Amino acid sequence: MSEPTKSNLNNARFLTVEGVEGVGKTTNITFISAWLEEQGVPYIHTREPGGTPLAEELRSLLLAPRDEQVDATAELLMMFAARAQHIEQVIKPALAKGIWVLCDRFTDATYAYQGGGRNMGFDKIQQLESFVQGDFRPDAVILLDLPVAVGLARAAKRGALDRFEQEAEGFFHRVRDAYLNRAKENPSRYWLVDAEQSLELVQVQISNALQKILADQV
Amino acid sequence: MSEPTKSNLNNARFLTVEGVEGVGKTTNITFISAWLEEQGVPYIHTREPGGTPLAEELRSLLLAPRDEQVDATAELLMMFAARAQHIEQVIKPALAKGIWVLCDRFTDATYAYQGGGRNMGFDKIQQLESFVQGDFRPDAVILLDLPVAVGLARAAKRGALDRFEQEAEGFFHRVRDAYLNRAKENPSRYWLVDAEQSLELVQVQISNALQKILADQV
Repeated sequence: MSEPTKSNLNNARFLTVEGVEGVGKTTNITFISAWLEEQGVPYIHTREPGGTPLAEELRSLLLAPRDEQVDATAELLMMFAARAQHIEQVIKPALAKGIWVLCDRFTDATYAYQGGGRNMGFDKIQQLESFVQGDFRPDAVILLDLPVAVGLARAAKRGALDRFEQEAEGFFHRVRDAYLNRAKENPSRYWLVDAEQSLELVQVQISNALQKILADQV
Repeated sequence: MSEPTKSNLNNARFLTVEGVEGVGKTTNITFISAWLEEQGVPYIHTREPGGTPLAEELRSLLLAPRDEQVDATAELLMMFAARAQHIEQVIKPALAKGIWVLCDRFTDATYAYQGGGRNMGFDKIQQLESFVQGDFRPDAVILLDLPVAVGLARAAKRGALDRFEQEAEGFFHRVRDAYLNRAKENPSRYWLVDAEQSLELVQVQISNALQKILADQV
């Protein structure tokens, strides 16, 4: 691939928002979008798995509850298939035009859900990350963090659960731990937000992070 | 994975049938099925991409003509996602019970179509083959071979073309060459069948191969 490995071409940044079920991703992504608009930052809002018609079809296959046991390696390959399509068709083309990309979940979610939640470890994920992405990584990851029980109670109010949301509580503890460990290992790229506080205080934390990310542009 | 890497457990063999469009795979797989039944060999008949409900859904995504350009790496990951599911849920469990597996296309088709046809080379395919399959390989590959123009003329009579069948003729020349090269590199596992001859003579060649494969069981 001939694209630059850093996504700061034309100053555009690749931002991802991560967190477990019920953490308030949707609400806070709306807040981030409004913040970027106020600052006059050109951006697109997208999500994973998904973000292109084919990748959204893969998302539907991944999330559909099914009788068939889904092989962990097959699930991982589907995630990265959707990601390869999304990166090449949407994310890199936007960054190349100087448009920021705000993405609801990315590879950190694979580490957290498949690596941590499904207990498959991180080696296979690292192999596929490097296979698909080379050195391409988000410039900043906003990690919304919440005790698992609080998040699940919120998510339960939303109705029917998808194949991941049907997992037992231990699954989500492993997901949260994996997210937190990744943030600790790469403190310069991660912005940890305590999402148990009031929405107002959550959004103060987020706008502080966004100001630094914006100021940090080359 | 704790399964044996050779599939000859309980003497069951893993047979695949390969070849370009219009080569007569369907007709000759029916012939092979009948032959195995006559010999009293327990077997299942399956296909790739596909062979499980999830893998068949991936097949539909792969074959559907679409406006969106499909990234070559995404396509490759989808193929191997379907394959991982198929191997773990269908192929290995059958072989472990002593049941032969007769499969319409397998990893050789990925080498031929993505590696040869799409010109993406063989390195990435080898990496994913080893990632998904470890040392697991077919015991015997029956390669039906035909000049490309003859095969395409036959395939055209079948009606609407899928996303692969819509490729230009050069694509299929590269597919055929890749198949033939693989057969030359691994002559002990491949049975090359000249499929331009009359169906009767094609099936004499196939039954000769099957007799040797059956006799060769450990």
